Amino acid sequence: MLYLLGMFGMSIFAITGVIATRHKNLDIFSVIFLGSVTALGGGTIRDVILGSYPVYWVADLWFLWVAGFTSLVAFFIVRTLSNRYQLLLYMDALGVALFAITAAEKTLSLGFTASIAVVMGLITAIFGGILRDLLTGSPSLLLSKEMYATPVLIGLSIFVSLDKWLPGFAWAVPVCITITFIFRVAAIYYKLHYPKWLCAQ
Amino acid sequence: MLYLLGMFGMSIFAITGVIATRHKNLDIFSVIFLGSVTALGGGTIRDVILGSYPVYWVADLWFLWVAGFTSLVAFFIVRTLSNRYQLLLYMDALGVALFAITAAEKTLSLGFTASIAVVMGLITAIFGGILRDLLTGSPSLLLSKEMYATPVLIGLSIFVSLDKWLPGFAWAVPVCITITFIFRVAAIYYKLHYPKWLCAQ
Amino acid sequence: MLYLLGMFGMSIFAITGVIATRHKNLDIFSVIFLGSVTALGGGTIRDVILGSYPVYWVADLWFLWVAGFTSLVAFFIVRTLSNRYQLLLYMDALGVALFAITAAEKTLSLGFTASIAVVMGLITAIFGGILRDLLTGSPSLLLSKEMYATPVLIGLSIFVSLDKWLPGFAWAVPVCITITFIFRVAAIYYKLHYPKWLCAQ
Repeated sequence: MLYLLGMFGMSIFAITGVIATRHKNLDIFSVIFLGSVTALGGGTIRDVILGSYPVYWVADLWFLWVAGFTSLVAFFIVRTLSNRYQLLLYMDALGVALFAITAAEKTLSLGFTASIAVVMGLITAIFGGILRDLLTGSPSLLLSKEMYATPVLIGLSIFVSLDKWLPGFAWAVPVCITITFIFRVAAIYYKLHYPKWLCAQ
Repeated sequence: MLYLLGMFGMSIFAITGVIATRHKNLDIFSVIFLGSVTALGGGTIRDVILGSYPVYWVADLWFLWVAGFTSLVAFFIVRTLSNRYQLLLYMDALGVALFAITAAEKTLSLGFTASIAVVMGLITAIFGGILRDLLTGSPSLLLSKEMYATPVLIGLSIFVSLDKWLPGFAWAVPVCITITFIFRVAAIYYKLHYPKWLCAQ
Repeated sequence: MLYLLGMFGMSIFAITGVIATRHKNLDIFSVIFLGSVTALGGGTIRDVILGSYPVYWVADLWFLWVAGFTSLVAFFIVRTLSNRYQLLLYMDALGVALFAITAAEKTLSLGFTASIAVVMGLITAIFGGILRDLLTGSPSLLLSKEMYATPVLIGLSIFVSLDKWLPGFAWAVPVCITITFIFRVAAIYYKLHYPKWLCAQ
């Protein structure tokens, strides 16, 4: 279950990586490379910081094949879509939610504390996107006006609280992924942002 | 003592991260995230390259709390200041000096040679700033005209020399931090730079 | 032999790092730092992802000295050359070929599978250049129109096939480096690129 959710989040990120390469004249293999790096980057940073060797996609090649294959399929499909930036935003929201909560779950299962789990969830989710934006030369979504880090932080806080106070609750992972995703989608759709005095000036 | 100096350097870097996000419409949580990544990034790269697990802020959560809290306070204070770019330059000079020498000390104490200590000092200090500049989309201070890497290299060379020839000298760390800082401040203030034939053309 | 080829690839990358800093007013020590980071970056990422500690240049300081010394010499030589961008392209082609195949050979010798060897070869070769382009603020060669990832992928595929079907063939490494290099040089010289329908749109 958690395995499939992690695989799903990774595929979603691969697709956002492929979408972000539009209008760049990149050929199919470069696009697959960038899609796969986007897909695998966040979790790689998590595993390397935690010293959790072997890194997950080195231990289980299925992640590599799915990342590459999803990028290949996305390469042919995204060109047929209009309004790709909107799609990128919503896909990124889903990928970030999946990455954050599954990373926190993995961190807890390795025996680290709740604080480390929240931080690793944030790093995995946000750096996946930052890496994509750096490599494709796009403006970072983290720098966009709508709430980006906040939904992830809320979802992660609920997740580690549930893990502490309701340790037997089997639905914690999907529930918190849904909360994070809906919050971020609401932020995009209703342009939720903080009042001016809580923004950098 | 070394612990407090490391904590101090990290806080200074957190502040530079917060200053560098000005005029970006970023909300408070994104700013705290960027400040903390700037604070913890250099040392994380050092620990990962040295294979020194667990990474320092995973082993000791105080670094994480101080990085986040300093970023929070800096978020409210920097907006009241004028001439923030000057402040960023001088804070960065102090952070770089603290990071370089404490990283070299940690590397030596892990049993690595003096050359590795100098290189890890350089990487820790300079990559902290590079990561900040990449994430906030600012021009890198390393590419500025005034001497940037040279003061760090001089301070580190004096530090490993002292460690070799005066192993009992308890003030090596603060003395070398001061030398590095003063040299870099002088470079900024007097616009010290190399003659043209020692610059890339 | 493999050791010398790895050293050679690293020196070539150091030179490309120095070339990429042109017109930036950088002083000699910053240039040597950037050249050395370019030289050592790709292999460092490979070793960290594989968890192969100590990282190669920490274990063997010769890599560090050669990277620094090559950058120093390149600093004085590149200014005398005209048409440096062309030189950068061809040097990068050679560095990428050397990095890819020697990284794949190291990955195989650590006991990883052929797929991991291909992926680590790609990552080592391409991230060396990406790191250089990010740090010097240059447009990434991966985003150029001519085939970039494809020659590396072909060379790596031939290399792991030879390793499987002709395990005793002593010339696999130099032969595959040559194939990768010639293919990429042909891509630059004849402006080889994919038909439009195989490019991102």
